[in-house]
Amino acid sequence: MDKDKRTEIGTLGEFGLIDKISENVQLKHASSLKGIGDDAAVLAPTDLLRVVTTDMLLEGVHFDLSYTPLKHLGFKAVAVNVSDVAAMNAVPTQVTISLGLSNRFSLEAVEELYEGINLAAIHYNLDLVGGDTTASRSGLIIGVTAIGEARKEEISYRSGAKVNDIICATGDLGGAFMGLQVLEREKQVFLSDHKMQPQLEKYSYITGRQLRPDARMDIIHEFRDLHLVPTSMMDISDGLASELFHISRASGVGVAIYEDKLPIDKQTYDTALEFNMDPITCVLNGGEDYELLFTIDQKDFGLLEKHPDIHFIGHVTAQKDGKVLITKSGAAVPLNAQGWQHF
Amino acid sequence: MDKDKRTEIGTLGEFGLIDKISENVQLKHASSLKGIGDDAAVLAPTDLLRVVTTDMLLEGVHFDLSYTPLKHLGFKAVAVNVSDVAAMNAVPTQVTISLGLSNRFSLEAVEELYEGINLAAIHYNLDLVGGDTTASRSGLIIGVTAIGEARKEEISYRSGAKVNDIICATGDLGGAFMGLQVLEREKQVFLSDHKMQPQLEKYSYITGRQLRPDARMDIIHEFRDLHLVPTSMMDISDGLASELFHISRASGVGVAIYEDKLPIDKQTYDTALEFNMDPITCVLNGGEDYELLFTIDQKDFGLLEKHPDIHFIGHVTAQKDGKVLITKSGAAVPLNAQGWQHF
Repeated sequence: MDKDKRTEIGTLGEFGLIDKISENVQLKHASSLKGIGDDAAVLAPTDLLRVVTTDMLLEGVHFDLSYTPLKHLGFKAVAVNVSDVAAMNAVPTQVTISLGLSNRFSLEAVEELYEGINLAAIHYNLDLVGGDTTASRSGLIIGVTAIGEARKEEISYRSGAKVNDIICATGDLGGAFMGLQVLEREKQVFLSDHKMQPQLEKYSYITGRQLRPDARMDIIHEFRDLHLVPTSMMDISDGLASELFHISRASGVGVAIYEDKLPIDKQTYDTALEFNMDPITCVLNGGEDYELLFTIDQKDFGLLEKHPDIHFIGHVTAQKDGKVLITKSGAAVPLNAQGWQHF
Repeated sequence: MDKDKRTEIGTLGEFGLIDKISENVQLKHASSLKGIGDDAAVLAPTDLLRVVTTDMLLEGVHFDLSYTPLKHLGFKAVAVNVSDVAAMNAVPTQVTISLGLSNRFSLEAVEELYEGINLAAIHYNLDLVGGDTTASRSGLIIGVTAIGEARKEEISYRSGAKVNDIICATGDLGGAFMGLQVLEREKQVFLSDHKMQPQLEKYSYITGRQLRPDARMDIIHEFRDLHLVPTSMMDISDGLASELFHISRASGVGVAIYEDKLPIDKQTYDTALEFNMDPITCVLNGGEDYELLFTIDQKDFGLLEKHPDIHFIGHVTAQKDGKVLITKSGAAVPLNAQGWQHF
């Protein structure tokens, strides 16, 4: 693609843009009977349950294009919805994309965004089956709906956690949040002195966590292979503490998690200290990690015990015992669900 | 509801708003296994095909809150998506709503919007099963995804029109567009002199067409009763001419429509003349009527012949014969697909 070329969307009309978008789309799933190009996509019947989730990403709220490459953004918009499908213990099959585009965006910019969307479609093995593009007066708006499938007995709701279940989290937490702090700081430095180049090398892991999150479909496929179904599950998008509140409320249980079991990457930890932040607060309340939080019956512990990327962070308690963090010194302090609030 | 009360969304947090929204939601369809409140909605298996469509409505582009009541807007956001489901000859079952809200919007405003959404859910017999609410820096954004069902042999694509099929349109056309012209004029009058009250009584039909469109599910249910499947169909959202281009292109056919057969309401006609506009141009290129454009095999003509709200506006021709309007004087002029372009 010629990086210097700029084609105005207005010169294409709506037909032209849809043609451009669907050019690179190939339907892989037998259930995708009709994709882009009619009033609606058409899906074949299936014996499986279907899950449906939707999410909206807004410029200036969810992303800042001054440091977010459009290709990464396209990938992320799909990944965060796939993460919701994963959180149901389901496998994604189809996705639709709605775009609101201000006239700042050229065809080349939209193509770059779709490069990321198409990469995600390949990575997660799902079909782009529809969407909508419209003008926007206020920057870029991305609406995604993802559809997935699972057998009835495979679905994991938030409501299934039982007393004595083990609370598990994948990956490490707080990184995406600290990555965002770094990106914002470097942006301010650049804005105050355009000769200053952003210093991002030493923060590459955490900025990657912010800009290129990956939904944990690998874990879902491992659950399938192990014939393991979590008793409850959700993805960690708004911060661990907030998600624990959701599971606690939906399941009618309490939770106890251990400070020394919380998974944090060294780069996240060091950067938190550099920013005079408490690393544990970043783990508990930082958003956008898109890892999985789930509970398992104790009998299934052996299946996951040696897994290198699953951490056993606590256990489910009776509702009356509340939601607590057990500190390194052994004190039980109430969890504070100060989630990732956009309002 | 106390109209003077103003509760800030920020005081509720995200949990609170979702609770408020789901308070009035009751799931009616057996296929809606899980609605609002988990990472994704869960739908039961079905022998039917599922259709999926998505649409985004943006303040300042698709609606102007200075003359659009929020309740009507909520209804319309659902109706325009149901119209896409209808256009596949399918019956809607579920809907998800994503909202972007700037801090201009109070809880009471969101509740008014949801009043309209819930009314539409009742009117079209569909379940609100999910969504997402987020802050917006740029006014109100509504993303809707609608899901519907149909038997395989019932689905109508854009691509099925055959030479000699009869081209049909429901209702009347151009009204929503002329209604918009009236609303915009009265807004300008009001802005230039706040003592001037808008004069809308004599335009009530066409302003209603703009503000409260109704998807033609009545027609879809009649098709079911008559065991009639249109050979092709789409909804008329971007203007009749533009939709004819879509059917022509998808089916590889030409179309001929007759000026004197085009359905136009007297109020639309009179208002077009008042605005020095050509009524036929309004019918051909005005958007947002949300009527149905479809083609039927000649053998089915008898089934619809006496229908009071279906108009036989032309017939399908060979591709080489192009897309033409036959004027009252008998001249064949090429159709111009100057659709409802937001870009």
